[in-house]
This record gives sequence, structure tokens and C-alpha cells, in this order.
Amino acid sequence: MSLLVLKFGGTSVADVDRIRKAASHVKREVDAGHAIAVVVSAMAGHTNQLVALVEQAWGFKERSQNGGEASAHYDGREYDAVVSSGEQVTSGLLALVLQSMGLKARSWQGWQIPLQTDAAHRAARITGVGVDDLKARMLDGEVAVVAGFQGIAPGNRISTLGRGGSDTSAVALAAALSADRCDIYTDVDGVYTTDPRVVPKAHRLARISYEEMLEMASQGAKVLQTRSVELAMQKGVRVLVRSSFDAPDQAGLGEAAGTLVCNEDEIVEQNVVSGIAYARDEAKVTLLKVADKPGVAAQVFGPLAEANINVDMIVQNVSEDGRYTDLTFTVQSADLDRALEVLRKAKDAIGYLDLRGSTDIAKVSAIGVGMRSHAGVAAQMFSALAEKGINIEAISTSEIKISVLIDAAYAELAVRTLHSLFGLDSR
Amino acid sequence: MSLLVLKFGGTSVADVDRIRKAASHVKREVDAGHAIAVVVSAMAGHTNQLVALVEQAWGFKERSQNGGEASAHYDGREYDAVVSSGEQVTSGLLALVLQSMGLKARSWQGWQIPLQTDAAHRAARITGVGVDDLKARMLDGEVAVVAGFQGIAPGNRISTLGRGGSDTSAVALAAALSADRCDIYTDVDGVYTTDPRVVPKAHRLARISYEEMLEMASQGAKVLQTRSVELAMQKGVRVLVRSSFDAPDQAGLGEAAGTLVCNEDEIVEQNVVSGIAYARDEAKVTLLKVADKPGVAAQVFGPLAEANINVDMIVQNVSEDGRYTDLTFTVQSADLDRALEVLRKAKDAIGYLDLRGSTDIAKVSAIGVGMRSHAGVAAQMFSALAEKGINIEAISTSEIKISVLIDAAYAELAVRTLHSLFGLDSR
Repeated sequence: MSLLVLKFGGTSVADVDRIRKAASHVKREVDAGHAIAVVVSAMAGHTNQLVALVEQAWGFKERSQNGGEASAHYDGREYDAVVSSGEQVTSGLLALVLQSMGLKARSWQGWQIPLQTDAAHRAARITGVGVDDLKARMLDGEVAVVAGFQGIAPGNRISTLGRGGSDTSAVALAAALSADRCDIYTDVDGVYTTDPRVVPKAHRLARISYEEMLEMASQGAKVLQTRSVELAMQKGVRVLVRSSFDAPDQAGLGEAAGTLVCNEDEIVEQNVVSGIAYARDEAKVTLLKVADKPGVAAQVFGPLAEANINVDMIVQNVSEDGRYTDLTFTVQSADLDRALEVLRKAKDAIGYLDLRGSTDIAKVSAIGVGMRSHAGVAAQMFSALAEKGINIEAISTSEIKISVLIDAAYAELAVRTLHSLFGLDSR
Repeated sequence: MSLLVLKFGGTSVADVDRIRKAASHVKREVDAGHAIAVVVSAMAGHTNQLVALVEQAWGFKERSQNGGEASAHYDGREYDAVVSSGEQVTSGLLALVLQSMGLKARSWQGWQIPLQTDAAHRAARITGVGVDDLKARMLDGEVAVVAGFQGIAPGNRISTLGRGGSDTSAVALAAALSADRCDIYTDVDGVYTTDPRVVPKAHRLARISYEEMLEMASQGAKVLQTRSVELAMQKGVRVLVRSSFDAPDQAGLGEAAGTLVCNEDEIVEQNVVSGIAYARDEAKVTLLKVADKPGVAAQVFGPLAEANINVDMIVQNVSEDGRYTDLTFTVQSADLDRALEVLRKAKDAIGYLDLRGSTDIAKVSAIGVGMRSHAGVAAQMFSALAEKGINIEAISTSEIKISVLIDAAYAELAVRTLHSLFGLDSR
């Protein structure tokens, strides 16, 4: 008997028919003799409706128009009370469906477990999971159906973990239960070497290390919430990403069914590069002829940080005469207009000749823990792109990742080129 | 400073605009210096949607068609987890709206208070309300926004109080808080001497006793849940029924704004009859030529009770020869077909000549605590109806009520006749 945590996202519980489908996966695992906890999200779209009600109640639009009081000012404790109700509904419904199939099951709200969090409402962090009662019932054959995304904060108030928090709920629960595995059922059947819509030869990875998954996730592969991967890595929870649309009989494959996110040492045959990620949602900002003097970087990036704008890649070219420099960096596309405004206001303080912004860029990354022990990966990558006539505008690297910023028009070509280069095309 | 409990029903919190209207009533009372708890229902229609999801999850329709497993068989604890989410949403939204108006406010779920109930899920009874923390915060100027209808049952599970349970929540909370009054905001502005759609001369009662209100409620005046009135009577909670659609400035009238349900001794000028109620949702069943022998009543009413069919009025006429009797009684119209089926199946056991059912009847009642000290009310009533040519098919009485069963066609005439007879027409 294994102890498994299964997690179903919003599209997998979007209506009662889909909840029934999810329940058939649960039943298969119970029939196989495993002790099961299931974590559920709210029905797809439901959380958005609840958030809209909260903003309407607070008079969000009126307040924004009247100059300033932002959404952040409303009481996160009440936001959490309202928004957490979505998971409460699906947990009860799944318990009922499981019971209708003849299984023992009960729903657990965050406060009932309890899944304790800090007081950072709307984006709380888990501080502890009390699983004694829940685990005893699981081992007694009762399926624990857990409302994801929610917990209980100090003061006995309902908290939520932020968007995508149900993945984190599932991993935290798996860690607390010392579960054998945490199965994330989603609308794709695993993690691919790259986006199959761009590269038809992309293939599903049987296994991927936590570190690689973290890079894949933050580089635009939207399979798992970054936070949940960090937590899984920290706690050593083995996470299986698999499809909730699999036929139940095909799905009885266990770890063969999806992609297992696990420790590096569980991966026997390791490629140098495991995957190619790309992101189009970044924008490039260039400051021309900035005075090349100490403190100028602080004058540029200080105001951006204050405005809560995250800066990703940064490139600085020293000019020929050494007095001026051109400064290029990237931000999220959604933040571009705000970033430009912030920098315009700070023009006198910074001192620059001109300011330019562009969203016609893409970031393409090669990711693999094998890079640690293989030199020359970057050089291979740059020359392959150069052969295709693709100009690299900026570079950033980590121990297991090389990212390049290129013209958006070449994004697909770059991804396909690197996918072939590193031997990832399926045979 | 008074301590008040305000309750808003589903139509009064049907959308955010209406919640804002409800909040303006709350603000008026806070501005007047009172300590306030507000009890809210779910948005109108929301509870029905949630119940439909529960029945779909349980496969209610399929199960009914396949012969038998009734809704009662599904797990009430899961029903309660799902359905209670409606009040969770409105409590959070109202707290946010109040905060947006500059008031201190917070939501309270049943388990947070805690409002303890027994384990009779879906229709639980309140066993205790722990108000120490809640009351301290109220006295400190924070509005307590309480999710109605829900509580916490043994085993730390969410329970609900049955349909209309928010009235009961409000009264129980008022009792536990020793509140000065419990104001029930609803879509009518009080309790009338009779239905104003039938008798335009009907007028709002300034005060009505608990006993009379109980009879009015169970006789078809759907203003307050019977259970909440019983509880108010038992605990001595003064209940004010008033309209949530009043303009806030007109509404600052306190007890002059609606109908106060209170102890008899608080009512100075007491009419003999306070109101005329009528109900059209009963049906008449007649068994012809039943053997007039001991035990026959048990043979008729036993099977009906087993089938959960409530019998209201019962009339038995002994036949001339003393061997047979005709038995007439009333049931809810909705139960008529089932009642007839039960009696058909029991025909051999009971032994009767013929069985008849009819829904063309109405029950009209005169209600008033003054009857206790006034003889002759029944005689007055019967002769007034006779004068109008209205035939009385059955009679039932209590200390403070006389009900007659008549042909449905004469219902309005009977109500108008009795309303005039007992001096209730507004001047």
C-alpha cells in the first residue's frame, strides 16, 4: 500500500461530469489498495467570479477612478473568506461523488485539517499541517477530500495561498503525510522537452529534476506553480504531473503515465539539456547614453523596485569614450508602460539621452542539470543561433540554464534549432 | 447604547447593490451608537444552485429512477459543507462593503463564533452559541457580520439549520448576546392583519405576541420561520420585522418602523382577534363508509405518518346506524397524491367504501390572544360566514385560534368578512 496525494485543478472539476471523471481516477487508486488524499481547486472560472464580487463590494472601480486606493487596501481576511468558498464547494461535491461510487470519503476544509498559515492573507505561506486525524482516517480506508488553496491563519481566520495555491496545498499535504507521491492531474499529460505546438517533435519527459522544473516553470512552461516545486524540492516530495483526461484504464500506469518531478539522483539517463523554454511576455527597455558613474544603476532600478516592477535580464554596454553607457533590461510586458512612466519621471535624477521600450522580443532558454558537468553548452548554443542568422540581444545564465533575448520573429526558429541541437527531437 | 442583531434575507443581499443598501441600514444603527451584529442569508437563488449541484453529484435523478434511494441517503455533512458556502460569501462581502463605508467590521462563520449545533445535518438544532469574543469586539465598535444558516456540529463538521435557518441564527445570536432587539429585514414592512392583496383595508400591526405570530406563520403568513418565533418566545427575544427597502432616513424610526413580535404583556391595546390567516395549500381527503370500530384511526393515520405525511384537521361523522363513519382530514396539497396512494394500498386493512381527494379547499383562521378572555368568538365567526352562504366543512380550534375549512372559491370572501367582523379594517 502506498500513500498518495492526488490533486485536480479547476478544469478537472469544472462541472459535476468532470468531477465524476476525477473521481474515477481516485477510485482506481483506492481499488489498487492505496490510501488516498485528494486536493481540489475551485470549479474553473468560479474563483474569478468571487474575486469580481469582492472588488465590486469594495467599490474597486470607483476607488481606482477617484485616484488611488488600490485593491491592496481591502481586507485580505474578507477576500479570503469569500474566495475560499469555491474550494469548499468542490471538496463537498467530490466527497459526495466518491460516496455515490461506494467509497468512504469526507471533505476537509483548511481549518478542519488544520492547514496552518501565516497572516499574509491572499498569499499566505503554510506554517504547518496537522495530519494526525486525517492520516488515521486515510489509513482506515477513507478518502480525504481536501479543499485546496485555503488554510487557517492566526486568529482563527480563513486564509488563501494565492493563485495556483492548490498545487502548493497538495505538495505541503504530501510532505506532512510522508506520502509516496503527489500526483498533479492537469490538462496536459506531462512536462515536454518544449512546447509541442512549436516543435511537433517535442516529447514528454519521463522524469525531470526539481531544479530543471523550477527553471521550466519560471521560463514559461505553465504546468506547475513555481512555489509548489520549490516546496517539493525542499521537502523531497516526488511529484507526478499527469493528465486528468486519460482513460482510467490507460491511466493505471503509475509513474509511467506522466512526468515525475524528482531528485536528480533518481534520473538515470540524464541529457545535458532537458528542455527548451521560451517566453514572449517580456518587454525590453533601453536607456541610451546614461552617465557611466557610480550609483546610476541604483537610480534606475530603485524606483522600479518601489513600483513593484520586477526586472529580469540586465545588459550594460560601456560606450567607447567610457563616459556614457547604454542600459538594456527586461520587464514583464504587462509592466512596460508603468516602467516607462517611472523612468520618465526619474529622468532628471538618472540623466539619460533617450528611453525606448519594445515588446517585440522573446526569451529562449536551454535548461539542464547536465550543464554543470558539461562545458561548452553556451558556445554550442550561440553558434547554432548565429548559423540561423539570429541575433542575440542579451544573455543571462545560471548553473543549469542559459537564456538569450532575441527578436520575437525568430522565437520559433530558435526553439526548434536548440531542440535539435541538444538531441531532444523524438525519434 | 443598545445591542442589536440585524438580519437580512436572500432578497436583501441578492447582489452587491442590495448588499450596499443593507449596509446603509447597518451604518445608521452604528451611527446611532448601537453595538451591531448582522446575520446574512445567501444571495437569493444561490442556495438552490448549490443544492442542485449536490443532487447532481449524488446522481439524485438517476438514483430516483432506478427505484428508490432517496435524497435523504446522501451525506448531510457534505451537503452542509457545500450549501453553507453561500452564507460565507455574503458575510465576507457585507463586511467589505461596511469597511468601504469606513466602519469596522468582520465576518464570522458558524465555526468561528462558534455556533454549536447537534449532529442532525441539513436541519440541525442549535445547542449553544459562544459569544464572548464576538461580543467583546461588538462592544469595541466592530460590526459582527455573521453567516446565517450555518453552525458547527460535533466532530468539527459544518452543519446547517434547514431552510429559513438564518432567522433562527439571528434569534439564537440575539438570545446569546442578550440583545435588546433582533431586527429581521425582509421584503415586507411588517406583519399585517391579513394579506393586503386580498383585503386592501388590511393594516400593519405595530405589535403582535409570539403566540399569535406562531399561528400566523404556520397558517400561511410567510414572514418569519416558525422555528425562529418559537425560539424567540422561549428566550424572550424581541423581534422586529421590517422592510429592507425602506429609505435609510425613514427607517430610523426604531420600533415604529415595522411589527414588533414580543410578549403579550408588552401589548397595551389588545384586540380580541389580531389577524386573519388563510392557506390554500391544503387538500382534503375523505374516506366514505369506514367501519366505526376501535383502532380504525390508527390504521388510517399510521401508514400516513410512516410515509412522512402530516395530517392537519380531522373530522369524523358517525353514520346514522352507528356502524359506519365518514372520515375527512387535510394534508398539504403537495402530499395529496402520495396520501391517496398510501390509503389505496391500505384499503383492505382499513376497510372503506370509497376514497376521495380534493384540492379545492381553503383554510381560514382567526387568531388572537384576546380570545382567551372573550367567549363567543367562534359563534360570531360561524354566523357571519353562514350569512354570506359559506359552508364550513371542518373546524379546528386552539386557545387563541379558530380555523375553518371551506370551499376554495369562498376564501377571499371569508377573509374579508372576518376581517370586518373583528374590527380589523383600517379606518
